[in-house]
Amino acid sequence: MDLQVTQENLNKALAIVARVAGGRSTLPILSNVLLKIEDNRLSISATNLDIAITQVIGAKVASEGTLTIPARLMQDFVSSLPKGTIAIKQEEHKLHIKAGNYDSTINGVSSEEFPVMPIITDGTSWKVPAQELKKALQQVVFAASNDEARPVLTGVFMHSNDGKLYIAATDSYRLAQKIVDGVSEEINVLVPNSAMQDLLRIISDDIETVDITHDEQQVLFKVGPTELVARLIEGKYPDYQKLIPSNFTCVAEVSREELINITKVSSLFARESAGSITVHLDDETKTISIRSVASQVGENTASAEAVVSSNGDITLNSRYLLEGLQAIKSDMVAFCFNGKLDPVVIKSVSKDGDEYIHIVMPLKS
Amino acid sequence: MDLQVTQENLNKALAIVARVAGGRSTLPILSNVLLKIEDNRLSISATNLDIAITQVIGAKVASEGTLTIPARLMQDFVSSLPKGTIAIKQEEHKLHIKAGNYDSTINGVSSEEFPVMPIITDGTSWKVPAQELKKALQQVVFAASNDEARPVLTGVFMHSNDGKLYIAATDSYRLAQKIVDGVSEEINVLVPNSAMQDLLRIISDDIETVDITHDEQQVLFKVGPTELVARLIEGKYPDYQKLIPSNFTCVAEVSREELINITKVSSLFARESAGSITVHLDDETKTISIRSVASQVGENTASAEAVVSSNGDITLNSRYLLEGLQAIKSDMVAFCFNGKLDPVVIKSVSKDGDEYIHIVMPLKS
Repeated sequence: MDLQVTQENLNKALAIVARVAGGRSTLPILSNVLLKIEDNRLSISATNLDIAITQVIGAKVASEGTLTIPARLMQDFVSSLPKGTIAIKQEEHKLHIKAGNYDSTINGVSSEEFPVMPIITDGTSWKVPAQELKKALQQVVFAASNDEARPVLTGVFMHSNDGKLYIAATDSYRLAQKIVDGVSEEINVLVPNSAMQDLLRIISDDIETVDITHDEQQVLFKVGPTELVARLIEGKYPDYQKLIPSNFTCVAEVSREELINITKVSSLFARESAGSITVHLDDETKTISIRSVASQVGENTASAEAVVSSNGDITLNSRYLLEGLQAIKSDMVAFCFNGKLDPVVIKSVSKDGDEYIHIVMPLKS
Repeated sequence: MDLQVTQENLNKALAIVARVAGGRSTLPILSNVLLKIEDNRLSISATNLDIAITQVIGAKVASEGTLTIPARLMQDFVSSLPKGTIAIKQEEHKLHIKAGNYDSTINGVSSEEFPVMPIITDGTSWKVPAQELKKALQQVVFAASNDEARPVLTGVFMHSNDGKLYIAATDSYRLAQKIVDGVSEEINVLVPNSAMQDLLRIISDDIETVDITHDEQQVLFKVGPTELVARLIEGKYPDYQKLIPSNFTCVAEVSREELINITKVSSLFARESAGSITVHLDDETKTISIRSVASQVGENTASAEAVVSSNGDITLNSRYLLEGLQAIKSDMVAFCFNGKLDPVVIKSVSKDGDEYIHIVMPLKS
């Protein structure tokens, strides 16, 4: 391999790819990135066996070749180099790198040992507008579980129905669902949350479309010059939609910002009680108020003006309420529930308010 | 205690004071702040027994009193409250706090149990321009040691000579000294590094003068409405000034930014060797170059143009060189040394370049 690239392009590519190369792995080569000349361009890949990311950048190629080199060193090194041309020359398992007044040799490992993700040969292909997908994922992914004991809940579930794409995640304590229009293919995939986090990093503001291909085992996201392949999670996702109530006896319409503020303050007094706060809707005073009590520390009541349908009380976890409210993109939100033991639904008050809903299960009070 | 204060003032005061209140202490009351009415104003204090900070804010006082309350809860709570008036009312060991739609009760502990720092009755008083002191401390404090095995090196040494104030810190591997003009008193104090870090936080941009009073045991810094009292470190500070060479055979004058850049890149290849890099001055090519070798990873040579007095090599720790360079405030720096085993001095090239010097001890190569 003998080529020239710009520091800017190589730096950007390494920033995207190198993060997947892990230090924790028992397979040392996974902490390397794979460099490969392909069609007169330089391809840079990393994988942790669950996810693989590849980015291709323009290069002036004098001779072909392939090698893996330590990802973190390469990334730190290239990001410190001055802008301009970088000359890269391979000599067996060494890479000589010259840029300005810098002259380096980095020791690599043969690419033969580098694991390759299987290629999706016969899958379903579909498209989603990139920025819409990004916004949707930002509203949903944080609700997925980190608990490997129930693998299906660590995924983000994407499925289609009637031309709509439903994106959902739940850890069984709260659930987020976003609906995106205009998908005609039949889709039913469970993507690891970690892959979605990487996808979010990759979708920059200038990307218009994400091309997706999936089969039974894997999914491929094409995002501009970057490809992300992830293993799908096996197993059946819970039929969560039947948990979503459609009618409510208790509804409060309130400023999202005010409800966030009083939830935050209340959560300070809920540290002792694992975040437990009690929300009270008051039909007479036209307020939604939150009360939290910590026997050691003290107690707090905070309220906000609201349009209230009926009196009611419900106890829930302040963090889940807060994260749900922060994911909703509208000035006014509806806080809806039925009985003390039924789920709380929060969503936008606007007429397309059902496009994103957030559900929080109550705590026993 | 029954009073009104503004959220803005109370929030600012708690941000300054509460950090000293520690969670690690074996004395639980030290994680509280002491509230006290004094001359129709509210005084807020915290201490960790080594350092005490007190801030006084304006208040509308209806009745006097004193109480200690959990520092972190109070700070988090007040910072979340809306701007405007906060009404505070004490009822035995409880504090009722009302602000806008927020209504809280915080449980406190009697102030009788709160430790009080001794007052300095018969000390030396002097003044330093606040912004000059702040800049000087920023250039010096990071060179102090964290190793409690040699307590004197964990301090920042301030001493006067010929109308000048010398501020120095060393961990025995590197040393920083800054000279500030215009101090006529005889000064010889060793202040804990941690107190200096707190002092740095307290000196905001609008402060003009820091008033200092010290006796044999303690030092008091008055910074606007804030007072910081610290216990002095006992013991004799090493006679470091005799270690500072005044003549050099090898001197390179180089752009500070370029030397920082090549040091950074070289340090990437010095991780295996505990940061060891070799600096080479070349009289012929008129360059200063840095070479680092990591047997596993690779090697790097980087160079920068320089005005060089004589050829020479010296091996030192890249982190110490980098931190020293980052503390110097000038575009051109002089990198000076004599033999391979003598200390390296880095300082500004300008004619008042000796006001701040940074010394790094070499490594055996």
